Amino acid sequence: MKSILLLLSTFFIFISESLSQSNTSQQAQKFVIVLHGGVGTISKSMPDSLKAQYLNSMAEALTIGKKILQQGGTSLDAVEKVVRYLEDDPMFNAGKGAVYTADGSHELDASIMDGRNLSCGAVASVRNIKNPISLARLVMEKTSHVLLVGDGAESFGKKMNVEFVPNNYFDTPRRYEQWLNFNKQEIKGTVGCVALDIYGNLAAATSTGGMVNKMPGRVGDSPIIGAGTYADNQTCAVSCSGKGELFIKHSVAYSIAALMKYKNYSLKEAANEIIREKITQGDGGLIAVDKDGNYIITYNTSGMFRGAANSSGLFEIKIWE
Amino acid sequence: MKSILLLLSTFFIFISESLSQSNTSQQAQKFVIVLHGGVGTISKSMPDSLKAQYLNSMAEALTIGKKILQQGGTSLDAVEKVVRYLEDDPMFNAGKGAVYTADGSHELDASIMDGRNLSCGAVASVRNIKNPISLARLVMEKTSHVLLVGDGAESFGKKMNVEFVPNNYFDTPRRYEQWLNFNKQEIKGTVGCVALDIYGNLAAATSTGGMVNKMPGRVGDSPIIGAGTYADNQTCAVSCSGKGELFIKHSVAYSIAALMKYKNYSLKEAANEIIREKITQGDGGLIAVDKDGNYIITYNTSGMFRGAANSSGLFEIKIWE
Repeated sequence: MKSILLLLSTFFIFISESLSQSNTSQQAQKFVIVLHGGVGTISKSMPDSLKAQYLNSMAEALTIGKKILQQGGTSLDAVEKVVRYLEDDPMFNAGKGAVYTADGSHELDASIMDGRNLSCGAVASVRNIKNPISLARLVMEKTSHVLLVGDGAESFGKKMNVEFVPNNYFDTPRRYEQWLNFNKQEIKGTVGCVALDIYGNLAAATSTGGMVNKMPGRVGDSPIIGAGTYADNQTCAVSCSGKGELFIKHSVAYSIAALMKYKNYSLKEAANEIIREKITQGDGGLIAVDKDGNYIITYNTSGMFRGAANSSGLFEIKIWE
Repeated sequence: MKSILLLLSTFFIFISESLSQSNTSQQAQKFVIVLHGGVGTISKSMPDSLKAQYLNSMAEALTIGKKILQQGGTSLDAVEKVVRYLEDDPMFNAGKGAVYTADGSHELDASIMDGRNLSCGAVASVRNIKNPISLARLVMEKTSHVLLVGDGAESFGKKMNVEFVPNNYFDTPRRYEQWLNFNKQEIKGTVGCVALDIYGNLAAATSTGGMVNKMPGRVGDSPIIGAGTYADNQTCAVSCSGKGELFIKHSVAYSIAALMKYKNYSLKEAANEIIREKITQGDGGLIAVDKDGNYIITYNTSGMFRGAANSSGLFEIKIWE
C-alpha cells in the first residue's frame, strides 16, 4: 500500500511541477495537446495501483508532447511521439499490449494527419511493426499513397528500416486474460493525440490493436482518415475511440470538421452533437482541438483515459467524470 | 469495319428499345440508376470497335440494374449486380481486367453501402476473390465488421463459399501493356453504381483494381466508406473514381452528403463544388443520386465511362461530353 501511495503522490507532485514550469515559460505562443488511451467500461473500483500506473503513464506521454510544443516543435511531431510512447506502454491497446484477434494473434492499425495541407498516412493490419504510428507517418511522407495494409505495409516498413518485432512481442498476460474472458463490455481501447502548435498548425494521430477477438483482417476506424482521424487547419484535429464500425459509417472525425465548416458550429457543439446523435450509448468518444486552441473531450462510455495540456498551464489527466 | 458498324447499330437499337420498354412499363414508382466505369485521359481517337465494346458493355450492365429496379428489386441488389457484371468484364479496372501492382500482380478493393440504415461492407487488398463487391456485401450482412483486408478477407470468403480464382485470372494483355508503359496519365479506372429504388431506398457500390503500378498493399478510396462510397436515404448515394488518395483526404463521398445535410445544397451544387474545389484538374469524378431521384455525373478528366437510366425512360450511355 505504501508503494501505491508513493506512486500517487509522485503523480500529483509531477502535475503541479508541470503547471509551474508552464507558468514561467518564456513561450508566449499558444499550444494545446490532448491525448486519449481509449474509452469503455472502466470500473471505478480499479485497484489504486493500476489507476496510478495509468495516470503516471498518461502524464509521461503528455509531458513528452507538451515539451515538444513548448520548445517550438510541430504538432505533427508531438502527436507522433505521444502515440509512440503509448504504443510502447503495455497498459494501452496499441502496439505492445494490443488485444488478441479471434485467432489469438495481433493486428495493428494507425493513422496520422497534418492539418497544414491534409497530408495523411495510415497502415492497417500490420503484425510485426513495433510502432505503427511511425510507419503511418512514413507512408505520408515517403509515398504517394495514404493507406498501406498487411504484407505490403510490412514490406514498405522493411525498406524504411523501421523496427520489426515478432508478433508475440505484442502479447501481454492482461490482454490474454481479457481475450479468454472476452465479452462486449470490454474496454474499447485505442490511443490517440491531437495538437495545435505555436505556428497554428493542427495534427492528429490514432493507433490501435482493434477490438478484442476481432476477425483476422478486420480494420476499424483508427487507420481510416475521416473516420477515426482527421486534421485540417481550417477547422480542427480529431482522434476517436470506440466501436470502429460506427465511426466509419458516420465518417465521425470528418463530420466534426464538416459541422464547423458548413454550419459554423463551435468545436464543442459539433463534437457533442455527433457523439450524442450518431454514437449509441456506451460505444465511444473522441478528443479534438480547433484552430483557436479550444479543445473537447467527449464520450458516452463510463470512462475515457485522457489528458490535456496547454501553454496557459493546464496539465490534467483523468479517467472518469 | 462492317462488324464495327453492326455493333454500333445494335447498340443504338438496343437503347431505343429500352426506352420504349420503359415508356410502356406498368411500374409507376420512381427509380434511378447510374453507373460508371472509371475516369481518366480517354482518347477520343479510340478505335470505333473498342468504343463500341465499352458502350455495349455498359448498356448490358445498366440493363441488368434497370430490370432489377423495374421489377421491384432493391437498390442494393441493383448496385451489387451491376458492379459484379463490370467486375467480370475485362474492359474495366475491377475484377477481371484489374491493373497490375508494382510487383506485377493484382489486388482488389470494393465497398457497398445501404442508405436505409447506413449498413456497409468492404474488402481491400484481396487477391483471389472473383467478385470483391459480393464479398463486401457479405461483410456487411454476415459480420459485425465493416472492412476486412488481405488474408483475413480471403479466409472469410472461404467460409462464405464465394468463388476463388488464381491471381493470374485477373491478367489481361491490355493491362499488362499498360503496366509496362506505365505513366500517370493512364485511365484511373474504377467501377461503381448508385441507385434509388421504388421504395425510396438509396445504395452505392464501388470496385477497383486500384492505380496502375501501385505499391503492394496500397488501398485507395474505393473500399473506404465516406471516401469512395457513401449512401444515406436522408441525402444521397455516391460512388467516386479518380486519384484515391485525394478522395480519402477530402472524405469526398461523405462530404457531398454533408453539404446537402448541413448547408441545404442540392445534389448538383454539392457534387460540383467538391469536384471543383477539392479534386485537382484531371484527377477524378463521381456519380450520385439523391433521395428525390435527381442524379449527377461530374468529373474533371477528359472523359468518364458512364450510363444512367430511370423510370421515366431515360437510358443513356456516354464516354465524353
